[in-house]
This record gives sequence, C-alpha cells and structure tokens, in this order.
Amino acid sequence: MATKTKPSILVLSLLIIIINIFSSRPSLASEPSNSPSSSSSSSSRWAPRFLGRFSQPPNHSHRHQQQQQKYRYETRYFSQRLDHFSFSELPNFPQRYLISTEHWAGPQRRGPIFFYCGNEGDIAWFAANTGFVWEIAPRFGAMVVFPEHRYYGESMPYGSRDEAYKNATTLSYLTAEQALADFAVLIRELKRNLSAEACPVVLFGGSYGGMLAAWMRLKYPHVAVGALASSAPILQFEDIVPPETFYDIVSNTFKRESTSCFNTIKESWDVITSEGQKNDGLLQLTKTFRLCGTLKSTEDLRNWLDSAYSYLAMVNYPYSSEFMMPLPGHPIREVCRKMDGSPTGSSILERIFEGVSIYYNYSGSVDCFQLDDDPHGLDGWNWQACTEMVMPMSSSRDVSMFPTYDYNFSSFQDECWKDFRVIPRPRWITTVFGGHDIKTALKKFGSNIIFSNGLLDPWSGGGVLQNVSETIVALVTKEGAHHIDLRASTSEDPDWLLEQRAIEIKLIEGWISNYYQEEKAIFNM
Amino acid sequence: MATKTKPSILVLSLLIIIINIFSSRPSLASEPSNSPSSSSSSSSRWAPRFLGRFSQPPNHSHRHQQQQQKYRYETRYFSQRLDHFSFSELPNFPQRYLISTEHWAGPQRRGPIFFYCGNEGDIAWFAANTGFVWEIAPRFGAMVVFPEHRYYGESMPYGSRDEAYKNATTLSYLTAEQALADFAVLIRELKRNLSAEACPVVLFGGSYGGMLAAWMRLKYPHVAVGALASSAPILQFEDIVPPETFYDIVSNTFKRESTSCFNTIKESWDVITSEGQKNDGLLQLTKTFRLCGTLKSTEDLRNWLDSAYSYLAMVNYPYSSEFMMPLPGHPIREVCRKMDGSPTGSSILERIFEGVSIYYNYSGSVDCFQLDDDPHGLDGWNWQACTEMVMPMSSSRDVSMFPTYDYNFSSFQDECWKDFRVIPRPRWITTVFGGHDIKTALKKFGSNIIFSNGLLDPWSGGGVLQNVSETIVALVTKEGAHHIDLRASTSEDPDWLLEQRAIEIKLIEGWISNYYQEEKAIFNM
Repeated sequence: MATKTKPSILVLSLLIIIINIFSSRPSLASEPSNSPSSSSSSSSRWAPRFLGRFSQPPNHSHRHQQQQQKYRYETRYFSQRLDHFSFSELPNFPQRYLISTEHWAGPQRRGPIFFYCGNEGDIAWFAANTGFVWEIAPRFGAMVVFPEHRYYGESMPYGSRDEAYKNATTLSYLTAEQALADFAVLIRELKRNLSAEACPVVLFGGSYGGMLAAWMRLKYPHVAVGALASSAPILQFEDIVPPETFYDIVSNTFKRESTSCFNTIKESWDVITSEGQKNDGLLQLTKTFRLCGTLKSTEDLRNWLDSAYSYLAMVNYPYSSEFMMPLPGHPIREVCRKMDGSPTGSSILERIFEGVSIYYNYSGSVDCFQLDDDPHGLDGWNWQACTEMVMPMSSSRDVSMFPTYDYNFSSFQDECWKDFRVIPRPRWITTVFGGHDIKTALKKFGSNIIFSNGLLDPWSGGGVLQNVSETIVALVTKEGAHHIDLRASTSEDPDWLLEQRAIEIKLIEGWISNYYQEEKAIFNM
Repeated sequence: MATKTKPSILVLSLLIIIINIFSSRPSLASEPSNSPSSSSSSSSRWAPRFLGRFSQPPNHSHRHQQQQQKYRYETRYFSQRLDHFSFSELPNFPQRYLISTEHWAGPQRRGPIFFYCGNEGDIAWFAANTGFVWEIAPRFGAMVVFPEHRYYGESMPYGSRDEAYKNATTLSYLTAEQALADFAVLIRELKRNLSAEACPVVLFGGSYGGMLAAWMRLKYPHVAVGALASSAPILQFEDIVPPETFYDIVSNTFKRESTSCFNTIKESWDVITSEGQKNDGLLQLTKTFRLCGTLKSTEDLRNWLDSAYSYLAMVNYPYSSEFMMPLPGHPIREVCRKMDGSPTGSSILERIFEGVSIYYNYSGSVDCFQLDDDPHGLDGWNWQACTEMVMPMSSSRDVSMFPTYDYNFSSFQDECWKDFRVIPRPRWITTVFGGHDIKTALKKFGSNIIFSNGLLDPWSGGGVLQNVSETIVALVTKEGAHHIDLRASTSEDPDWLLEQRAIEIKLIEGWISNYYQEEKAIFNM
C-alpha cells in the first residue's frame, strides 16, 4: 500500500522523471483476442525487450551518482571505426569505456582482463549493476573493462545522439557484428598499449550483452579465453524456439505463485477492452489506474500492464532490488498477494491496479502514473529489433495469461518500414551466428562458454539450457531470474546463487590456468 | 629455345593477347640494393600476388572454351546484399555461381554440398582448374557449387566493372568478410530452395580461396562441416612470419635445382642496373630481352623477371601444365638447365633471357615481349592488398636471390593512398581472423580443417605447416607447389600426390560420416 507521506518537491519531481523514463512501453506482442482486425495496430510489432529506457538512466539521478561511487574506474574514450567491414569513408566515433587496473596483476604476471560486453544502454549503469565482475576481479588479479556499445550512452557516432539517430542511413551501423568488432579492436589496442598481449581476456555479459559475449567467444576465439553469457537468449530467433516461449514463461511464473492471480490477469484484458468501449469508459479507467493524463486508448493501458508483468518476471529476484524499479524480494509473490488479498468485492481492475502498484509504485510516492506517449521514438533497441534482432513473439491461447497473439512477420516488417524506413533481416542472425542445430555446430567447435539462465526469467526460453560439450556448459537455476548471477552479492543471496557463482568462478579459473599451461607448453616447444 | 615455325595469324594474335594479360606485374617488393634512394618508387609496395591477371582469362579464349566443356554445370545468379554488416541502402548485385547436381544424392539421402570458395578471378576459370572437386564429387554423391567472389568475373556491384571499380567508395565493399557473408547467405538460400538443410557442406579453396575456406570454417562453423584449405597463407600477415619468407623460398627453390642458376639470377640485378645506366643501355636491354617496345626503365625489366621467378616457384609442378602459362614439368629445373647450359661465353643477361623464355615463351611462338605498362590499374587484388590483405614482403640480404628490400609500411601506405585514396588496415585481418598464437587459439576451437601446402610453393611459408589438433591437420608435401592437390588428376601424378589426395578424401569422408552420426544421435535423443 502506498505510504502517503508527502515527499519533498525535489524528490517528487525526480521520481516523476524516473517514472516517465521507466514507464516506456517495452512490450506489445499482444492483441486482444476479440479484435483480430486491429492486428495492424502500430504496436503489434513490439517484442518484449531486455530493458526499457531504464537502460538510459538520467545521468544526474541520485541513484546513478551513488552507483558510480560504488566501483572505482577511469572513464576513457577510444576512436573507433564506424564500419569495420567496408572501407567507406566515414567519421570515427568515440567509444567510451570504463577501466580499472587497481587490482590488475600486470603484464609480467599476465594478469587477466575482465571484459564486459556492453549492451543497449549507458555503460556506467551496467557497470553499477554488474557487481559480480568487480567483486571477483581482485582474487584473479584482473583488470576490469566496461566498454560501451556503439549508439548508446555517450558512444555516439556523428557527434551527437540526434545526428546518430537521425535516419536509417546514420543508424545503419548499429549492429551486433559492428559492436563485436569494436570490442575486438579495443581489446587488441588495450593489450598493445599496456604490453598485455599475453594476458588472457575473459568476457562477461548479461541479456543482449550475454549474447554478445557468447558470439564474441565464437567469432573471435583468438581474442578471449572464455565467456560467461548470462541470460543470453541466442536461440530466440527465427523458428528455433516456439514464439510463445517468452509469454508462456511469464505466465507460468505468475501461475506458480498463485492460480487466482494468474486468472485475474488473464481475465482482465477483456474487462479492460469492454470497459473502454463504454461511455466515459476511458475516463473511468484513467481514474481506476490513477493515470496523470486521460487514457487515449485501452491499448496504451494494456501495454503498460503487459510491460509490468514481463519485467516483473525478469527481475523476480529473491531479495529487494532496484535494477529496473525499486522492488521487494520475490516481487511477483508480492504482486499476487496484493491482487489476491484485495478486499472482498474488489473488481478485477481494482485488483490489477493494486498488483501493478508493486511494480510501478513500490516506494508509494507516486501520485499519478504517466503512460509513455512515444513508444515509437527513435530508440536504439527498437532499431536493432527492426533490423537484426528479430525475435518472433506470440502469445498462446492455452498457456499464456496475455491476450492471444500470433506473430506476423509481414505486419512487423510494415511497421519497421514506417518507423525507420528499414527492412528487417529475420534470417541474418542465424546465418551469421548460427542457432539451428546448435549442439552439432558447437560440439566440436567452440569451448569455454558458460550459458547461465534462471528459469523464472522469460528469456531463459531462448537460452542454451543443456551442456553442449565439456567446456560449453549450461548453468540452470530453478529460482533464478534475469542474469541474477552478474549482480553484486548481498547478505540475502540464497544458497543456490552462492553455489552458482562458485561454479562460475571455478570454471573461469580453469580457463585461465589452462591458458597459462598451454602458453607455457608452446613456449617450451 | 624458341621454335621458329610461324604460327597462324589468329593464333599469334591470341598469344599476344595472352602475353599482354599474363605479363602484368605481380611482384615488386624489390629495390636494387645500391639505390636505396629509389625506395619511394611507385612500385615498391607490390607484394607478390597469388595470381596475375591470369585470374581474368579472356572469356573467348580457346583454352577457356575447352575447359568450360570439361566439367558440366549450370550458371546461375543470386541477388546478394552489397553490405551484410550495415543497413545502408545499397543496390544488390548479382553473384554468379556455377552449380552441378548431376551426381548429387539429393536431400533425402542428405547428399553433401561441395562448395568452392571463389577467389580473386573469374569463377569459370577456377572451376576449370579445380579438377579435384569435380573428380571426387561422384563418389560422395555431392552437389558441386562454385560461387564467384564479389567484384570479380561477372559478379559486379553497381551494374558493371567500370562502375564497381570507379573509386574507393564503390570498391569499399570488396573485402574478405563480405565475401564470406556472401557464401554463408548463398549456402543457406541454396539449402532452403533445395530442401537441403540437412545436407553437410564441405568447403574447398586454394590460395586466397583457401584462406577464405579456412576462415569460413572458423567464422561459420554452423554452415559447413569442414574445409580443405590448400596453399592458404593465413599467417602471412603483420609480424606472424618473417617478411623475408616468400622470397627466401623462391630463392631456395632455385638454389635447390642449381647453385649456379641461383647465382646467375642473384648477380643479374646489378648487371641490369649498370647496363641501364650506360648510353643506349635501355636500348641494348630491349634487344637482349626481345621487348616489343623500348624499355623505359630497368625497373620494368626487373619486375618482369621477378614476376617470372615467383610464379615459376608457385607453379613448379612435376608435370607440364597450363595453369598460368604453358610450362613443362619441373619448370624451374628447365629454366636453370637453360641458364646453366647456355653456350660458354654467354653473358649473364643472355643466360637470364634463355631462362625466363621458358616461362614467357615455352611454346616458342612469341616474337617479342610486351611488358605490362599499367601495373597500377584498378585491379581487385591490388585493392584488397591495399586495404585488408596487407602482407609484408622483404627480400633478405643473405638467403634471397632478389635485390635486398626492407618492407616499409609507411611508403606502402602512401602508394595505396595515391592509387586508391584508401588507408590500409594492416592489423585488421589478424584482429578479425586471428593468426598470432594460432595453436592456442585453435587447439580447443575449430575442427575439420585441412591445411595443405607444398614446400616448393613460396606461399607455404605463410601456411599452417603443423597439425593444430586431431582434426585441424597440416598436410605438407616436400615436392608440392601452389595448391597442386586441387588440380585434376593426370597420368603423371607422382605417388606422394596420389597419397595426399587419398588422405584428403579420407578426412572429408570422416567429417561427413561424423556429421551423419551426430545428427542421428541428436535425432534419436
């Protein structure tokens, strides 16, 4: 229940800014089951995202400042080629990277380099939220490097975000392969400058960054000795896993906590739709959900709810966290407790509101909620989703608590053309990185990759959940959520998490000591 | 000795065309040791090439027609993206490929696909000169595909060769990574169209094509089950092998046949230089070497000779061949026999002329020799050498029979800028494909690659000459020359060559049957 203590104006306006930023619509693979004709809706193409605009937290936010102090590093910039794969005359851009050599054993002792593959957001935010790397670096004598992904944070081509995001031409170099090449070039330059050529590199990454880490290990095996790819859905492409996977997992994660909660949500969509069709229905919904502005369509509301449920499943951590929003531990349990525990006679929508308030207003300080009014703004991940990162998403009739929706590539393509004037390439990722029949491909190829996944995380459905070989290992935790293993340790970490991290450390130690031994063997030859 | 029988006018003019085409200057890493000041010479950047303009034989030549009849295939075209790694709006181009399903066991029986990685030239010419693939396809029930490399032969972006080669902007997509992506996309599309998704692909390639085959296997392990990379100098980059390697091997190959021959060549460069400084010296040289036009500088002559020696070492096959020029078996032996066997009292230059006549005029039908007068023409390989394929080449003081020359990147770079307005990236190939410390990188990574090399071939110095793992195998033949194993069998094939090919067939059979077994195991899971 929201506390009513009035916060200071400063804190209040700050919170409103954060809500505005964080409430951006990430996910809308859902259409109401009773309105198939609206399938051309402008939002039907939105697949769930890894991150909302959380990935770009305000630079001056209180939270960000605090986190920047948490780990010590230097901020540097590296002049990077815009297109590694052609010789077009294009301007270089400054790639930001955070670096700490505080605990590095140095080149003589071949101290390792821990390299986090920056993903779709401000790298300082990822650095602040990837405590695992910082915490284990000292025991390895490792240097820590957090490079920013091109077109995010401060790493903008063409001089500014506005110029970089101007149109399809300026955005055209925002691709995963270019980002991997950035990393490879940066690693080689760092090594050269620090005389660290013989120092083994270990890659880390979570979510899209985990995909990058795994792909980096596959495509540039000479650059790194291994990769910890946490919650990396590298199989969420084309027809590799069923498109219903994501929403099925979100739904099951709710059902697991409470069948009645699951049912409330499942029933709510039609209620919202029919409510919206009444006279003054939108106004009524605006009141029920305490929205700041009058609701323009029920779709906006459905998106806002869908988004909350999906993210809740991702950050369903066993302890309180602030990764996406300030949340209690086991947040879905809390959401369902609220929904189920509403006073007898509460309507479905009142229950829903009580539930999602846990997500959008756990601090209790929000007076009204601002729905994102610009879900189609030029956003980096939207571009990536409209070009390479085409992850088909459906909502199944039987398992899902979301409105039934069948993925439709053709309408997805139309909307990408409308938004960006770009044509998606749905088969490219599987061509360049593989994915089909991954076991056969990787069994004798590739080594030293940890694919870690928590089964509560809806992205786990697109992850590698079985060992591929002796050195391509799947670590699956039943109670884990989205890349929980990469987070800083807490006093509340459950045993399975401690154990998981211990295994990861052991495997990484193995990669590094193997590397030293092989180098020695070759040196002695 | 050239026979004096007068050939018909048709044949003569044809031969002159061929000589014009074939005499193009491939190699000029050499400067006269006594003129260091001339190091800014416009030709100092020319590293030896795999092929001269041989790679573009006249389409209507008699030879070509004959060869096209030799192996049956269909010619098709595939609409290919110009830039796979960005979403720039660029026109597609038609990639030519030759295909034969004559012996294919078909999709049901999962007949293999033999895929030759087209290199820097007309694909029909490579198909005609890669008899091994055609000869073994029937026993494997394999489909045969020869795709052409972008920017060569008929596979021209922007509608025509002139447009494609107009400037650095139009040429900028002529890179190895783009070519590999072409291959990957083409394979997936072929498989889809032929319902051949489950058919294993085996890659073949010689020389630069061998590099592509090896890199393809490394970068796209999910696309092919193995690669035969013949004479692929993937280590000829940066500082991996000493830059003297190439010319040292050419020199040793001559020395091995005859020390006096080696010495004659080694002494000849100064003689040419001092001869050229005399009054009427260039005229005298023109006569001695029976040049069609008066020699403009001794450098042109030196280039012409250097080129002959380098190519002779590459095609030093044990039987007569027409790969680059019509030549006898063991051509270097013949050259040296001529040089050493010249009448007593013959001058050094007379001996040299007798020797190189074996290379440039074995048929004896050439009346005068035309030196290439446009070594800086916009040529695909020159572009590649000026961008990614930066292979440092020096000529050593002690071992080499060529003028001493120290590789100088800075002057190389200047000339690339002059010729193409492009800046070479000498560290890129080793960044994207690796090369340093290849054993450590590949030992636990990669599988099913045959690196075959003949030690007479000067490119073998940049090849992988030792087994890397159980499945990354080096096949080294003492008497082999440039990708001899890929050539059609002949009645004169020596035992070691028969044996080498038998091993290759056995290894390829192993890859394919392993693939079938693994697929079966997964299918039964």
